[in-house]
Order: sequence, then structure tokens, then C-alpha cells
Amino acid sequence: MKKYHTYLWLLSFILIIYSCKEQVTNNSDPLPSWNEGVTKQSIIEFVSDVTDESNPNYVPSDERIATFDNDGTLWSEKPFYFQLFFAIDRVKDLAPEYPEWKTTQPFKAVLEKDMETLFSFGEHGLLELVMATHAGMTTDEFEQIVRDWLATAKHPRFKRPFTDLVYQPMLELLSYLRSNGFKTFIVSGGGIEFMRPWVEKVYGIPPEQVIGSSIKVKFEMTDTGPVLSRLPELDFIDDKEGKPVGIHKFIGRRPIAAFGNSDGDLQMLQWTAAGNGKRLMVYIHHTDAEREWAYDRKSSVGRLDKGLDEAIEQGWTVVDMKNDWKVIYPWTE
Amino acid sequence: MKKYHTYLWLLSFILIIYSCKEQVTNNSDPLPSWNEGVTKQSIIEFVSDVTDESNPNYVPSDERIATFDNDGTLWSEKPFYFQLFFAIDRVKDLAPEYPEWKTTQPFKAVLEKDMETLFSFGEHGLLELVMATHAGMTTDEFEQIVRDWLATAKHPRFKRPFTDLVYQPMLELLSYLRSNGFKTFIVSGGGIEFMRPWVEKVYGIPPEQVIGSSIKVKFEMTDTGPVLSRLPELDFIDDKEGKPVGIHKFIGRRPIAAFGNSDGDLQMLQWTAAGNGKRLMVYIHHTDAEREWAYDRKSSVGRLDKGLDEAIEQGWTVVDMKNDWKVIYPWTE
Repeated sequence: MKKYHTYLWLLSFILIIYSCKEQVTNNSDPLPSWNEGVTKQSIIEFVSDVTDESNPNYVPSDERIATFDNDGTLWSEKPFYFQLFFAIDRVKDLAPEYPEWKTTQPFKAVLEKDMETLFSFGEHGLLELVMATHAGMTTDEFEQIVRDWLATAKHPRFKRPFTDLVYQPMLELLSYLRSNGFKTFIVSGGGIEFMRPWVEKVYGIPPEQVIGSSIKVKFEMTDTGPVLSRLPELDFIDDKEGKPVGIHKFIGRRPIAAFGNSDGDLQMLQWTAAGNGKRLMVYIHHTDAEREWAYDRKSSVGRLDKGLDEAIEQGWTVVDMKNDWKVIYPWTE
Repeated sequence: MKKYHTYLWLLSFILIIYSCKEQVTNNSDPLPSWNEGVTKQSIIEFVSDVTDESNPNYVPSDERIATFDNDGTLWSEKPFYFQLFFAIDRVKDLAPEYPEWKTTQPFKAVLEKDMETLFSFGEHGLLELVMATHAGMTTDEFEQIVRDWLATAKHPRFKRPFTDLVYQPMLELLSYLRSNGFKTFIVSGGGIEFMRPWVEKVYGIPPEQVIGSSIKVKFEMTDTGPVLSRLPELDFIDDKEGKPVGIHKFIGRRPIAAFGNSDGDLQMLQWTAAGNGKRLMVYIHHTDAEREWAYDRKSSVGRLDKGLDEAIEQGWTVVDMKNDWKVIYPWTE
């Protein structure tokens, strides 16, 4: 009988310790890489409001949808989109099979490392690169090509894998939102199949919560079984007006929080803002030339011009990377 | 001190009761509307295997993707697809605005309730009906139209709302899979925006886990804010070869379990079967003319011909509705 009492005392003790631990966890800072200030405050206040059942702005967990642009919002995008580095490396790898590329643009420019000429062909030239390097294989094969490239390619400035150039404060934000019942989605102009092989490991976002631009895919029955073949034909451009369309198509409900960094995200933020109840619209403003890059209204990659005007006019949250973020990348901590 | 002891006793008592309750829940049948037999056994064995870490066929919870056709797999589809009842009722509602429909096919046939003539126009005629009745409004407006229709429309045979014609055994299966860490998706030839307004309440499947056929949508800024307008233009047909394509586009990984009832689901089942590791491919065979409908190889709606041959050849699971299901609809229990 005495022994049994000891058990019960032990049990109460464990329960007390456990409830203390909970307390400590709840009181710790969920966004340690964010400096204190209005930006951090606006995010925390929004999350507190929509998760508090007694608050008039309460939102049930099912409807807590948050959408994130990728390039320039979750990872860097300079000197140009990382997917373009991939396409360029693919052109070099494939060049022996296509001797005509030596004299055909835009491939000639890529092989001669003449970026100025390459960019002079504009969107049309880039699209041609994508079609030549991203199509003509099965979806499984393409996934493996992306994985292999990411395992070896290095960013020219930081001499590190591209997936090291993700923002530590945004990783904390993703995790903070998810621990508060949010479902986090990527809504990017980048290729959906270029992102899916790595975003789960890097951001904790599963493939089914990734929306992006895509080329068409065809089901075919081969001798060894069914495959999905990638065709050199555009399917969907998930940029500007395409972002709310993509959100509607893939998610089927309106986000209550949206995060972007360029004019390409403006319509996504407008669509989010136009819903009922409390909303959080956030622009990441690249202001840190030393630790990352500083650019906005005049940048050809990730231009933030109309979006910045509207953010100021509407009172959206603007993250000043230099002043709001203690660290940029996880490995600089 | 004595009072405190009483508390502790009470606590232990509650804990014991609670653990007994857990025991009972775990031992109870997760599929009570399924008769015992090889069909039920194959489902339970599959779920046990892929969720048991010590089993060579174990699959991590993230990868437990299960896809379900809707018409004929989760709810009935006779005398014809329920979405066609919706389109017909829309034609009647809109007819006063389009006096020319009285003399123009296929609208004339609808207004004269001449189903034989209507069906004689084939897919082209039905597509014309869909474009005339499903486009020309905002996405919010269309959602409300669907909700209003479901609240009042009745199935001609059972005189009940169409959403009452869902299969009780499949509701149990959905819930059984989810409680075992599966993510359940609808992959239907039906309209994605015709399903999303009600499937969460009826099946517990959120809008972002619904894949279906769609028309194009356009982002527009109006005086009262941004809207998404529905255009009379096909975007995607989620049927036959389109199903694996839709799965790849929306989910980005291959299901480990797939459920269908017609030849339109064959490619989805083939795509599922071709993955590595243990897989579950299930065809619902409509064999119960009394409680539901009996049809397969010769039916124009939900034809199961090639699929049935392949299921038998490959040893897939075939549900015999008449013999495998104790009840069909929830309200007949």
C-alpha cells in the first residue's frame, strides 16, 4: 500500500514537471532571428488574434491558409533566379548532343557565357531555354536531374549549395505558423517540378502544397509500364494575375496570410487582402547589400515597385531585411 | 492529507477508465458496414502492413496518399451524373434570359425534358451545356449557386438531397485511412468547383485535396475589388489519362492506394500499381440493383469493362457492393 502511494506521488510530480515544461515552451520566442519592432509585432499579433477563440478575428484551423512566394521570399534570387543557373548547366550538359546550339541563339550565348546577350532575348529566349532543358524526359527522370544538380551546383557568390541560401527568419516563420495550425503553401513563378524535389526537406512543405509554373505532361503506357512524359509546351504561368488563379485552382480557398517580395506577388496580396476578417499581407524588402542584396524599383529580377507603393498605401507589413532580421542564412548564425 | 489521497485515487481511476476506453476503441471494427471476407481483409491487411514500422512494406505517413474517384465510387451516379442534374436545373433557371434556347439544341432538348435527344449530342452537347451554365460569373457566385442547388434539389429515385447518396462503407473507409495517417484526395472527372463547396462537410476532404475537371478562370480588378471570373473555356479534363496527370500536377507524388469504379479510373489505378512497394488498387463493382444500381460493361454512365478485365488479371481488389456492403447509404442503417 505504501509503495502504491509512492507511485501516485511520482505521477503527480511528473505531471507538474510536464505542465511547467509546456509553460516554458509557450513563453519562448517563436521568431528568435527577428529583431523586436513593428514588423515582428504585426506578425505575432495577427497569429495571436486568428488563433484565439475568444477574439472576433478568430479563424478555424482548417481555414488558416498561408501562401509564400519562393524566389526572393524564402530563398535568394540574385544575381538571377536559381532555376536559370540550372537551365544553363543543363544546356552545357546537353550541348554534345546538339552541335547546332553552337551557332543557334539563345544557346550560343549560354555556351559562350555571354549573359548580356542571353538576357537581350527576354522572356522568349528564357522560355526557349526551359523547353529545351526541362522537357523530353519522364517526370521521374526530371526529378532525379534536379536532385543531382542541387547536390553539386554552387552559388557563385557564396560558394555553397543553392539550398543553403534560404532565409533563417522565414524558416522560423513557416514553423511558427504551422505550429499555430496554419497550412503553408508555396505559390511561385518558378517551375513546380523544379521545387518539389527539395522543398519538403528544406522548408517542411510537402509536394502537394507547392504551386508553380508548369509545362504539360502526358500519360503513356510503355513496355516497362506507365510513365508521365514532359512535353515542350507551357501549361500554366504562376505569376502576377496567375497567382490568385493558381491559388484558386490548387487550394480552392482564399489565404488569410500571404508573403511576397516583388510586383509578381502583388495580385496574390490583393486577393488575400480582399477577403473578410483579419488578414496579413507581407512584402520582404531586400535592403541588405552586405549580407544579401539590396534592390527594389529598378531591379530586373524581383522588381518591387508598384507593390511597394501599394504596401505603403494599404498599410501592409514591409520587412526591412537589414533592420528586421538578425541573420539571413541558417549557416551564418 | 486524507482528502488529497482521495484525489489521487480518483485520478488513477480516471486513468484506468480512459485506458480501457482506448483499448475498446482500438479493438472495435473500423469498417462496421463491410461484411467479413476477402475484400475487407485485403483493405485491412494493406493498412496494417504500410503502417507497421517493423513490416518491410512500411510507408512513412507523409507518403500515405490515397486517391478516390467520386461519381460511382463515393456517391451514386445513376440515372446519370449528378452534375448533369445541376446543369439541367441551371438551364431551366436561366431560360427566361435566353429565349433563343427554345429553338436551339441542346437547350431545346433540356427544356422539353427530352433526355434521349440530349444524350444524342454526346460529349459535345454536354460540354455546351456546362459552358452555358457553369461560366459567366465569379467563383464566389458559382460556389453559392452550387450550395443553393444542393440545399433544395432532390434525387428522382430516392427523393432525397443528392449528398445523401454517399456510400456509408466508403465514409468509414475514408475515416479509417485518415486515422491511420493517410491523406485522402478526390480525383474525379466531375467539376472541381462543383465538388469543393460540399465535400469537406460530407467526406471530411478539404478543398485543397480535391482534383477535378475545370474551366479557365481569370483575375480581374473591379471597382469593388479583385474577382476571379469563370470563362467558357476548358482548362483540364480529369478523366482517363488525365487522372495520373492531375495527380502529378496537384499532389506531385504517386498514391499508394487508389479507388475507382469505371474505365475512366483505369489509368489512375495503373499509375498507382506501377509504384514501388505494397499498393492497394480497388474497383467498386455496382452489383446491387435493389439497394442501388447494377451495371458494368455496357453502361453508358460509369462503364466498367477494360478495368474489370485488368482488375481480374492483376489481382486487384474488386468490391461486390451487394455482398461486401451491409448498407449502402448512411440513412438506411
